[in-house]
Amino acid sequence: VQNDSPELSLAPGRRRRRSVNDERRKTVIDTAADLIYRRGYDATSINDISNAVGIVKGSLYYYIRSKDDLLYEIVLDAHSYTHQNLAICEKLPTTPLGKIRAYINRHIRINTDNLAKSTIVYRDLMYLNEERRAEIVAGRDKVETWVRDQIRAGQDAGEMCPDIDPKMATIAMFSMANAIYQWYHLDGKLTPAEVAQSHTDFLVAGLACDPATHTPGHRSRLAAEPTI
Amino acid sequence: VQNDSPELSLAPGRRRRRSVNDERRKTVIDTAADLIYRRGYDATSINDISNAVGIVKGSLYYYIRSKDDLLYEIVLDAHSYTHQNLAICEKLPTTPLGKIRAYINRHIRINTDNLAKSTIVYRDLMYLNEERRAEIVAGRDKVETWVRDQIRAGQDAGEMCPDIDPKMATIAMFSMANAIYQWYHLDGKLTPAEVAQSHTDFLVAGLACDPATHTPGHRSRLAAEPTI
Repeated sequence: VQNDSPELSLAPGRRRRRSVNDERRKTVIDTAADLIYRRGYDATSINDISNAVGIVKGSLYYYIRSKDDLLYEIVLDAHSYTHQNLAICEKLPTTPLGKIRAYINRHIRINTDNLAKSTIVYRDLMYLNEERRAEIVAGRDKVETWVRDQIRAGQDAGEMCPDIDPKMATIAMFSMANAIYQWYHLDGKLTPAEVAQSHTDFLVAGLACDPATHTPGHRSRLAAEPTI
Repeated sequence: VQNDSPELSLAPGRRRRRSVNDERRKTVIDTAADLIYRRGYDATSINDISNAVGIVKGSLYYYIRSKDDLLYEIVLDAHSYTHQNLAICEKLPTTPLGKIRAYINRHIRINTDNLAKSTIVYRDLMYLNEERRAEIVAGRDKVETWVRDQIRAGQDAGEMCPDIDPKMATIAMFSMANAIYQWYHLDGKLTPAEVAQSHTDFLVAGLACDPATHTPGHRSRLAAEPTI
């Protein structure tokens, strides 16, 4: 009877096994992320990871085939948060500046709350094989294009300074937000929410402009050195 | 006679030899910086450097004793520009915001105009031996303290927003300025001067505030998400 309806007889067992495997798989990836974060990609071996997970090396290969696979899974995990964030923010019923505020605040929280994985994305992406790296960079480009489009829309709407170069402002934003891993420590004085608020306020203040007082070049004249 | 006044008899020869050595030493450091910049610190050997300079390995040891020595010289070179910049800007006859503008604009130009050495400072400092690294970090702390002090003075003077956390704003500034090496290419569309102007204007606009219109928390309310 079992052989006649393998879906029915095997499904529960398969489902249970897959669920256990998914959990074990997540443990492998999270443990690897933590080790690579602390030791660096080069200095972490498959052996170190299987020891830390508490399984033999042979069993580890059931979940991943290579260190590159592991790095790829870690980076995909981190990027899935980024793409979720984009999906949420592009639908927000607010102005372009409001969308930028919401996006960058959440982006910084993704970085602070997933410090190991986000550090690996910014620090170790160069180790990923070329094809996979190209895929990740394409995903990043999509986000950056969206941010640039919001800046252009905000300029058209008169809420962001028309003197701003959207590409440079996008670089400025991600430079601030993605340097978090270089200085932020979970045991520091500021909470993740305070860090995100502070950086976000700074960025929004740097983008905003009042059309009533705008004159071309006013940002460059502010506290400028006297020309001699 | 020569032996009686070694200073007189040897000085010209010594001076000439030292000058040639200084030039050769500069060539060694600049060539090493260029190689390490392109290949990475780990992937560059003393052999690669002596080949690129065009001298035998034994001669190279006349100028430097180890790869760590080379890294130290490169980092010291880059930092000497930073400290020159600080010495100039702290004496400028302008307001704190004017000093910040002048400092960060020049700092970005130091990064764009010395891309190999500044990249090595930001990317490879971790390879430097602990004692030397501590010395470099202490020098960096001195600069960051000066920037924070300027922000506090600008807040007191009513030209920078009192809601700003000086420490976070300092981090924001150096995050933008020191990420240059991650994206900037000399053959890009923007000139080094345009890159510096754009980032500096963004930072100054983010710091500035008009006491006449300031109300506590106004930066956080700008384009804020409606609370539900």
